[in-house]
Amino acid sequence: MFRFFVSADEYEKESPVLADENAAHARVLRLKAGESVVICDGQGRESVCRVEDASASTVQLSVVTRQASETEARILASVYIAFPKADKLEHVIQKATELGAYEIVVFPSARCVSKPDEKSLKKKLERWQKIAASAAEQSGRGQIPAVIVLDSYTAALQRAAQADRAILFYENERATTLRQALDARPYETISLLSGPEGGFESVEIDQAKEAGLMICTLGKRILRCETAPLCALSAVMYDAGEF
Amino acid sequence: MFRFFVSADEYEKESPVLADENAAHARVLRLKAGESVVICDGQGRESVCRVEDASASTVQLSVVTRQASETEARILASVYIAFPKADKLEHVIQKATELGAYEIVVFPSARCVSKPDEKSLKKKLERWQKIAASAAEQSGRGQIPAVIVLDSYTAALQRAAQADRAILFYENERATTLRQALDARPYETISLLSGPEGGFESVEIDQAKEAGLMICTLGKRILRCETAPLCALSAVMYDAGEF
Repeated sequence: MFRFFVSADEYEKESPVLADENAAHARVLRLKAGESVVICDGQGRESVCRVEDASASTVQLSVVTRQASETEARILASVYIAFPKADKLEHVIQKATELGAYEIVVFPSARCVSKPDEKSLKKKLERWQKIAASAAEQSGRGQIPAVIVLDSYTAALQRAAQADRAILFYENERATTLRQALDARPYETISLLSGPEGGFESVEIDQAKEAGLMICTLGKRILRCETAPLCALSAVMYDAGEF
Repeated sequence: MFRFFVSADEYEKESPVLADENAAHARVLRLKAGESVVICDGQGRESVCRVEDASASTVQLSVVTRQASETEARILASVYIAFPKADKLEHVIQKATELGAYEIVVFPSARCVSKPDEKSLKKKLERWQKIAASAAEQSGRGQIPAVIVLDSYTAALQRAAQADRAILFYENERATTLRQALDARPYETISLLSGPEGGFESVEIDQAKEAGLMICTLGKRILRCETAPLCALSAVMYDAGEF
């Protein structure tokens, strides 16, 4: 069944309507009266609905059953990534959403070569949030991960450290594995930090340790900055029993 | 240190030479006499070399030490993917190489919308092998994964089934998890199969079972055809103790 995210207000109605981009999407899908679709409020609730009328510019639905979404991960994994080049960031947002990330947090670090200026940031953030919404819809998620931009590396460390487990991946780390970090104690929330194209500077690693993060390896091979967070998230979801 | 793959013949020499694309790459990197580089034979052996002369169109090296490559995964993971659209296949080849795949095997399946014709295949295979070589170089691997094209789904199943563990990922499977499949018995070789954009047909799942493959889920969220194999490979490498 096709899924659509609607506002909480629209979700509450007994006869919700698909409008704007949802309506355009419905036209592409050639939805017809009598078919079933799922609408989600993006906060973990979803309803199976019947299409009543798809002939106008908006699509008229009626709620058949309401239920809690069952596709969200049991653990809340926050993916922290230092600003990479634009196409890589969009790739990570799309894939991390599919893989079940709770949120995606972007931050500057010393070797970032690409950081949008204040002026363009608002528009970019809108675009990134749309990419997350679209990937959430396609992958059948009940929630749209928030895309959050922080303005300093220090702020990223402080925020990340509040999770039950906070891990930074560093290509020069050899001793501590992700498995050791995950096996240490049970966790419900986890922060996974990775660096930009040029990696982290060693002083940044010291800062992360001071902030309470564990420094881990992702293996003997050097992963690109867009591969590392998705590899880590896949492994964490596997470790958490998601598949 | 920068890495270059050279032929086995070139590798054996005491004064090997970087020629052609390697020489072009060396110019981009502005290699200078006295610097150190690593050359690999692509079969798991590597040498640290000193640059003797980088002023000509080829780069003259001398071997300092020879060693076995230490970056290859302990398990041999074969990634089998049904022909997706071209850009997605190239993405999977690059990322699976970074993540340590032993080989990447491409095959047709019922719902493939994109399969290159016989005529263009040879040229495409060359291109795919180059993508694997470049990703192997960048990620510091000692071997270049082979990219192999099979001409039927049946051939893919038969070949995949020869590994110690052979798993097909199916979005409609709910019961058997990857963890259950991996925990069943120890393994040194593993085949990971995933489908094209439109997924597998149920008759294909029956065929896979008959061929001896286990049918597993990758979780409750629907992964895109280019995300599923990389998620599975990341989880398998984690499970195998790589990180």
